[in-house]
Amino acid sequence: MSTTPDSLNDLRDRLRQFAADRDWEQFHVPKNLAMSVAIEAAEIMEHFQWLTPDESAALPAPQRAAVAREIADVLLYLVRLADVLDIDPVEAALDKMAINARKYPAVRGI
Amino acid sequence: MSTTPDSLNDLRDRLRQFAADRDWEQFHVPKNLAMSVAIEAAEIMEHFQWLTPDESAALPAPQRAAVAREIADVLLYLVRLADVLDIDPVEAALDKMAINARKYPAVRGI
Amino acid sequence: MSTTPDSLNDLRDRLRQFAADRDWEQFHVPKNLAMSVAIEAAEIMEHFQWLTPDESAALPAPQRAAVAREIADVLLYLVRLADVLDIDPVEAALDKMAINARKYPAVRGI
Amino acid sequence: MSTTPDSLNDLRDRLRQFAADRDWEQFHVPKNLAMSVAIEAAEIMEHFQWLTPDESAALPAPQRAAVAREIADVLLYLVRLADVLDIDPVEAALDKMAINARKYPAVRGI
Repeated sequence: MSTTPDSLNDLRDRLRQFAADRDWEQFHVPKNLAMSVAIEAAEIMEHFQWLTPDESAALPAPQRAAVAREIADVLLYLVRLADVLDIDPVEAALDKMAINARKYPAVRGI
Repeated sequence: MSTTPDSLNDLRDRLRQFAADRDWEQFHVPKNLAMSVAIEAAEIMEHFQWLTPDESAALPAPQRAAVAREIADVLLYLVRLADVLDIDPVEAALDKMAINARKYPAVRGI
Repeated sequence: MSTTPDSLNDLRDRLRQFAADRDWEQFHVPKNLAMSVAIEAAEIMEHFQWLTPDESAALPAPQRAAVAREIADVLLYLVRLADVLDIDPVEAALDKMAINARKYPAVRGI
Repeated sequence: MSTTPDSLNDLRDRLRQFAADRDWEQFHVPKNLAMSVAIEAAEIMEHFQWLTPDESAALPAPQRAAVAREIADVLLYLVRLADVLDIDPVEAALDKMAINARKYPAVRGI
């Protein structure tokens, strides 16, 4: 993997150390981590549950900060899940974008 | 934000272009993107639904590749959601790790 | 629909009254109710996040009671969602069981 | 439990037989069933992912039928989960409605 400073690789390494320091590797099996990603994704949704689409785009600062904390939780579990499965999430994302580009051709800016 | 090459910032920029080229910004309101993160998170879980924790840690290559595609989907929607809310997901993740470190003190490697 | 006393029809009617008494029909659009079902489903999962399958089958009474409250939440939102879409959830469930029976033939008790 | 004909008790009994006939009890531990409820809840959401609230309330018949099948899946897994945990989902729902009534007093129809 790349040795240039990279935010996701840094998070990945910090999460490895965090789990090791607390003897938590035993809990970080893919099944549990996949559940965790979904649990935290639902906590993001909770902030938008009763809002209209327009209201969701105009969140007051305190709610936006709360959503940031839930986005953080999803990202952390996702990076950890990818790591324990030896998956490079950015490489996977770039591959998926290439697939999506062919499936949904651009209509503007061509 | 940082101008050093960074994988998440690169994904963020590619996703902005992707949405603009297809006139999709109208659909990318936070409410819909939050639902999308959760929908894709469930698709990761589907691969582990009936597996034991041990089986989940020993996925054959084809299933691992399928999980990689779902991890990609979650990451893409998460980066897009953070962007439309003007949230830096890595900064949020580092803040959350600091909070977690105080909440769950290290027991090893001290 | 049936006029015999039935628990789901009773819940459905109570939920209609509950929403009307609080002027909440405006929020009970299918999109929001579908998000709500998913949000509460994640809250059920939270109780099993780090448990092994065996531990999940041996919940102490307080945790079991907490899970019961989350199961209640999912059922209430599901009944409400079905009602606003004019769907009979039991009829749909029986139809699905018939499909599943053909898709997964019985191996025992034949 | 009640012996009057009741749709949820009937589904519960059919699901017990269905699992027994296929030797599936081994998979129906609460952890897996909780994941299943959440997975199917996400499949309901998928039908509303890009719709506005108003569009979600005016689904064409084919999409409504597809949503009915996903509502069925959530109900079936929810009833099965409640059963393996020896929880009465209707009793839990009625208890929760009582709690909600005190938490959110009626503003109309008093």
